[in-house]
Amino acid sequence: MSSYSIGIDLGGTNLRIAAVAPDGQRLETISLATRLADGPQAVLDDMAEAIRQILEKHDGQPGIGVGSPGPLELPAGVLHHPPNLPGFDGLNLKTELERRVHRPVQVNSDANLAAYGEFVLGAGKTYAVDSLCMLTLGTGVGCGIILDGRIWQGMQGAAGESGHGPIIPDGPPCPCGARGCLELYASATGIVRRAKALGIDDSGAAVTASAVAQLAAGGDSRALQVFDEVGYSLGLSLAHLINALDLPLYVLGGGVAAAFPLFAPKMFATVREGSYVYRMSMPKDPAVYEKGKTHIAPAQLHDAGIVGAALLPLMSAAKTPA
Amino acid sequence: MSSYSIGIDLGGTNLRIAAVAPDGQRLETISLATRLADGPQAVLDDMAEAIRQILEKHDGQPGIGVGSPGPLELPAGVLHHPPNLPGFDGLNLKTELERRVHRPVQVNSDANLAAYGEFVLGAGKTYAVDSLCMLTLGTGVGCGIILDGRIWQGMQGAAGESGHGPIIPDGPPCPCGARGCLELYASATGIVRRAKALGIDDSGAAVTASAVAQLAAGGDSRALQVFDEVGYSLGLSLAHLINALDLPLYVLGGGVAAAFPLFAPKMFATVREGSYVYRMSMPKDPAVYEKGKTHIAPAQLHDAGIVGAALLPLMSAAKTPA
Repeated sequence: MSSYSIGIDLGGTNLRIAAVAPDGQRLETISLATRLADGPQAVLDDMAEAIRQILEKHDGQPGIGVGSPGPLELPAGVLHHPPNLPGFDGLNLKTELERRVHRPVQVNSDANLAAYGEFVLGAGKTYAVDSLCMLTLGTGVGCGIILDGRIWQGMQGAAGESGHGPIIPDGPPCPCGARGCLELYASATGIVRRAKALGIDDSGAAVTASAVAQLAAGGDSRALQVFDEVGYSLGLSLAHLINALDLPLYVLGGGVAAAFPLFAPKMFATVREGSYVYRMSMPKDPAVYEKGKTHIAPAQLHDAGIVGAALLPLMSAAKTPA
Repeated sequence: MSSYSIGIDLGGTNLRIAAVAPDGQRLETISLATRLADGPQAVLDDMAEAIRQILEKHDGQPGIGVGSPGPLELPAGVLHHPPNLPGFDGLNLKTELERRVHRPVQVNSDANLAAYGEFVLGAGKTYAVDSLCMLTLGTGVGCGIILDGRIWQGMQGAAGESGHGPIIPDGPPCPCGARGCLELYASATGIVRRAKALGIDDSGAAVTASAVAQLAAGGDSRALQVFDEVGYSLGLSLAHLINALDLPLYVLGGGVAAAFPLFAPKMFATVREGSYVYRMSMPKDPAVYEKGKTHIAPAQLHDAGIVGAALLPLMSAAKTPA
């Protein structure tokens, strides 16, 4: 086994390629802009070039794992109209990159890999659980499910799309086709949308999710309402996930999770009301992990996605049903 | 291996004990009333006596599986305030029955066992899938999830409680604590509740779910609305389940599933809108199974629960995470 592997985080804005030791330590990170305007072939060339630089500098035969925004058909590795990667529809990320670097490449969704990174080296390791679900609250909302130590990717690689689905059925329409999706409330984009709708205007500057969080921390009632809605929507989604899966651990990652104290009270109240499975195994203090109880907590890794991508070549093949 | 095993279906009204061959054929069934008024010890005595009768009549060393209403803590087999078995709180169904019959007993929830029966010998067998989810639409709504051939029972045995959870968050309160649960709309009880609310009154006779179905089949607009609501609530729940799990097969069982043609149009329309994962793998004709597509269909076994209970001793131990 190589002393490191290569993890790639392909985002709509940034492309990062890292050499990562099995304990998660980053040996090197190459950060690039994702050249969307130049098309997928240019982006693949950038990836391949960065991989070559890492291989020249570090000895070994590292495996390569790539995390990509979805929808990503698995195990094939083909992108299907990915909203955050315009122009990439139909691209076989796996074979296109393998053709360039002449070695095996594994791909999975960014949300699945964040969950896997957090499982192996973050909260999953801290609490020694076999299964978890992670919601990544970033520009959008991703979700990854780890069952008995493996990514549950579903029949076509589309499991863990719980950022979408009609949790508030009479809510506003989401580009995914449903109404009232979690992503409309609990993503950075959703927070900005709700803040503007409530009249929050950062004196001409662009309204950002972190600016709204600062306002809420300072007691602004409209900003507090925005984070109440974050907590409410998360509570509804978690109630559905807990009642369906009964896992020991639910992790919240991504930039919005930094505002955990702002949305946690409403989130926990909503989960308590909505999920009797949660009430069966509710910890005395939701901030303190108890073995055998259901724990909902912020992620522990700074950057679970790229760590999970690097871990992907090390794991046994992810299982696909049917 | 014995040529049969014993499956027990413990319901709030009926107690059935059957000798079942591995192909699902019923060699004998003993049907009793569940003597709830006489307490759990009397009900356990009835079970043990029926097992003795079967053992005397049929040669072999059969395993014994029991399906019970929940919440049932697994693998321990302890009931926790089961709403349909008043007086059974804290009962260890497994050890109490083992003590009486001097042989090992396995227990699981009735909804999990219905899903497992349907998986091994019903729709799961017909379509040769590795995973499925089954919603049992009876007096209440149960749910069982089979992943890679095994019951997914969760950390405490409470997985698959998707009959509950706030799918319509501003809906009426459910005894489970949430608002707008699937069970309030898609169970026989829910159908009667909605029919009465819409003014359907069966000329003094008790309103039943099948009477409402007959009215709907005859074109009664209020009864049609009731089944539209059944379809809508099922569509919302299925959208959440499909987006989370991406399974090849979702099965609808229980008495209400007989009205499939009445609620299917609204159910499929709601799933199409609410789940882009479904749209990624939507069959051309929802009534026709296509490999690699997401299929939603009525159950194929007449009585999946007792068959699943009898199969339980034959399966490898159900996996529990963490």
